[in-house]
Amino acid sequence: MAADTEKLLQFLLRTGDNTLVLSHRVSEWCGHSPILEEDIALANTALDLIGQAQMWLGYAAQVQGDGKSADDLAFLRDAWDFRNVLLCELPNGDFGRTLLRQFLFDAYQSVLMGRLIKSSDETVAGIAAKASKEVAYHVERSADTVVGLGDGTAESHKRMQAALDYLWPYVGEMFESDAVDTAMAEAGIAPDPASLRADFDALVGRVLAEATLTRPDSPFTHKGGRTGRMHTEHLGHMLANMQWLQRAYPGCEW
Amino acid sequence: MAADTEKLLQFLLRTGDNTLVLSHRVSEWCGHSPILEEDIALANTALDLIGQAQMWLGYAAQVQGDGKSADDLAFLRDAWDFRNVLLCELPNGDFGRTLLRQFLFDAYQSVLMGRLIKSSDETVAGIAAKASKEVAYHVERSADTVVGLGDGTAESHKRMQAALDYLWPYVGEMFESDAVDTAMAEAGIAPDPASLRADFDALVGRVLAEATLTRPDSPFTHKGGRTGRMHTEHLGHMLANMQWLQRAYPGCEW
Repeated sequence: MAADTEKLLQFLLRTGDNTLVLSHRVSEWCGHSPILEEDIALANTALDLIGQAQMWLGYAAQVQGDGKSADDLAFLRDAWDFRNVLLCELPNGDFGRTLLRQFLFDAYQSVLMGRLIKSSDETVAGIAAKASKEVAYHVERSADTVVGLGDGTAESHKRMQAALDYLWPYVGEMFESDAVDTAMAEAGIAPDPASLRADFDALVGRVLAEATLTRPDSPFTHKGGRTGRMHTEHLGHMLANMQWLQRAYPGCEW
Repeated sequence: MAADTEKLLQFLLRTGDNTLVLSHRVSEWCGHSPILEEDIALANTALDLIGQAQMWLGYAAQVQGDGKSADDLAFLRDAWDFRNVLLCELPNGDFGRTLLRQFLFDAYQSVLMGRLIKSSDETVAGIAAKASKEVAYHVERSADTVVGLGDGTAESHKRMQAALDYLWPYVGEMFESDAVDTAMAEAGIAPDPASLRADFDALVGRVLAEATLTRPDSPFTHKGGRTGRMHTEHLGHMLANMQWLQRAYPGCEW
């Protein structure tokens, strides 16, 4: 595989794995949400995310060009081959933490998709155009919930602040750059992640202020997920569950 | 397979799956226990239990006679083919609940193994003789911990009582009888489970009294695990993790 093809593949895996892994996490709420309306909303969010994953990983499989499918990439890779940011694989915690993680990811996605619709790669631009409509709705909804719970009761405020303190050290990884990102930026395929940070901070800052939540000021960030250097222990357990059917019944069809 | 062979197989799967499934649950504590001494003790308990599972399932595989091994039975069956009691598959909860579950199972095992060493089936008697030494130590240790935590601080007492209230409705299944048990009893291979209850109640009653814990008086019991009719949702998730390696890398060796 040519060096630039390999880098495009990495970019697609990173973008696709983010939505695949977060989709599975969100789907874990199915049947467990505090109220029916939220249960359905979360299930729909999970479906949107897995639809996006199918598009990104479908293109990744095409670029890889070895006859593998999006399903193969989703269900037959092991943890060390996943390229999602760590934020997406963290356990759900309580409802507040799940929604805050969703908002942080939605905010990132909304900025990223806004740039990707102008990608020099037509397939990337096309996927981003489709995804951006869903993302716009997701971020509006998760932001509303973060405000509602942050600026809610003493208990809900306390939980949301605890969730923010827990999740914030995982935000920085979304804006790290490496050789893959540099190559994508030079080819006009995707923006350098660092260039997304200002818009992200502005959006998140507005919502957190309205939610009366205090953004931690530590610059420390966990990382290693999107480069594949190291995932949390949670990803392997999640994949064992997510991939069970395809592992237990190889090649199954219905 | 002759009807009596099929019933012997079911008995062996029930006995082996109990220790296999509980072993995996206990092993989940590895590296997470409150103090090093307990971490090592729990890891050793898990090792003893998996050693027992290997013996029971090894004999089961031999009785099944289709060339499958104990490993095949452990790692390539699905949740609906497991025959453990539901008690063994319940999530660990906190340390106190884990130790109380261990005590309830150890108490049952100590009574059962004491009978099985006199089994008319020499292999069953041999396995029981080996297991009973470990079980005697396990029940002494878990009983001590139940007393220590039950008759401990206000917080530890509260947690142990909550654990007992949660676990008690899973105790009755260990003493349910069906056609398999009747056949085993008639052949002198294993006692009817109902006949173990008095000894179990006496042992558990003494320990709970010393632990200042109140045994719930509800006769309701969850069941379905040992007959394979229905497991909790937890078993499938546990097996997905437990069986990941053999599912992802079929036929792997080292």
